[in-house]
Amino acid sequence: MTEHEATGHDEAVGHGYIDDKAKYIRRLKLIEGQARGLQRMVENEDYCIDILTQLSAMTRALEAVGLGLLEGHMRHCVVAAAREGDAAAAEKIDEAMKAITRLVKS
Amino acid sequence: MTEHEATGHDEAVGHGYIDDKAKYIRRLKLIEGQARGLQRMVENEDYCIDILTQLSAMTRALEAVGLGLLEGHMRHCVVAAAREGDAAAAEKIDEAMKAITRLVKS
Amino acid sequence: MTEHEATGHDEAVGHGYIDDKAKYIRRLKLIEGQARGLQRMVENEDYCIDILTQLSAMTRALEAVGLGLLEGHMRHCVVAAAREGDAAAAEKIDEAMKAITRLVKS
Amino acid sequence: MTEHEATGHDEAVGHGYIDDKAKYIRRLKLIEGQARGLQRMVENEDYCIDILTQLSAMTRALEAVGLGLLEGHMRHCVVAAAREGDAAAAEKIDEAMKAITRLVKS
Repeated sequence: MTEHEATGHDEAVGHGYIDDKAKYIRRLKLIEGQARGLQRMVENEDYCIDILTQLSAMTRALEAVGLGLLEGHMRHCVVAAAREGDAAAAEKIDEAMKAITRLVKS
Repeated sequence: MTEHEATGHDEAVGHGYIDDKAKYIRRLKLIEGQARGLQRMVENEDYCIDILTQLSAMTRALEAVGLGLLEGHMRHCVVAAAREGDAAAAEKIDEAMKAITRLVKS
Repeated sequence: MTEHEATGHDEAVGHGYIDDKAKYIRRLKLIEGQARGLQRMVENEDYCIDILTQLSAMTRALEAVGLGLLEGHMRHCVVAAAREGDAAAAEKIDEAMKAITRLVKS
Repeated sequence: MTEHEATGHDEAVGHGYIDDKAKYIRRLKLIEGQARGLQRMVENEDYCIDILTQLSAMTRALEAVGLGLLEGHMRHCVVAAAREGDAAAAEKIDEAMKAITRLVKS
């Protein structure tokens, strides 16, 4: 957190996922492995439906990471902004709603 | 369809994506790169919302690959099965609907 | 089906949902009732999260109707088009893929 | 926040959508009309793909209402809970995350 202290929007509270950094990197490495697995399946000319099954599993894993990051963001950044004042709260909620809308639509 | 008759699900006609194998591998490599990019963002303690934006872009890229694979599957395997007979058609459509349901829900 | 016989793209086979017309109308009536229920909840100033829970249930019911209609379409119209020839198959699959893409993205 | 103290979850501050009650009821009436329109299309034996197009439009309208209600909830209830204290904030965010997860998955 030291490089972060003097700079950003929520330096004092830290980002919501900081305590879980190792967990998120581990989950993203698994997802990276799933992307490589899909390449191997295409390379091997595996059956389309089997590839789609793995692709849906990867999408769900990615979605779970997104929901986890969002939850951390709400617990830390949104709560801190709400306590800071109305303008800060409004800004963080606008931003969070845009991210939620993208998650819902993607 | 003669080349299909003796062989089993679609070896002879090939899977729907075979002609586009290189394209799909290229797109999946980009997606693998996006998974690594997300790890770097978490490692660097980037802002949660910026990570979520990249994660949604990655989900959309993955979804586009899934829809592309499904389209190839429909054009080749489903059409071939429909021409083979009612039982083959029913089996392929059951399978395709399960894959579509997973895409819709994920 | 008589009014349909001489006219459309797949009159001979009929639309995929025809045999299940009554079932689909019944399910859509339930969904219409859910829309009225949501209005009552807003009118009564029910708790936002409770309204969202009902709204998600309604979205899932609607999605299930969509997947059912799509399955019927595939079983009837897409199979019939595949048997009619390559051009008919290509046209129906283009159309089905657009519908599937909308279901996936909505 | 004093007006909130004695009352329970958010009666005094009001739900997030209260100011927009008439707007939400109007939008839900339109959605109810879309559900009736879909029944008419099935009754008339309209083409499956045309029904699916209308169904997707209805799903998107419903999703937009859900995102609007969620935004109001965040602006009012979540912000109020954050100011009330850590336990209240945690409870409201748990609840909001469950609603968001259902929106993302449906």
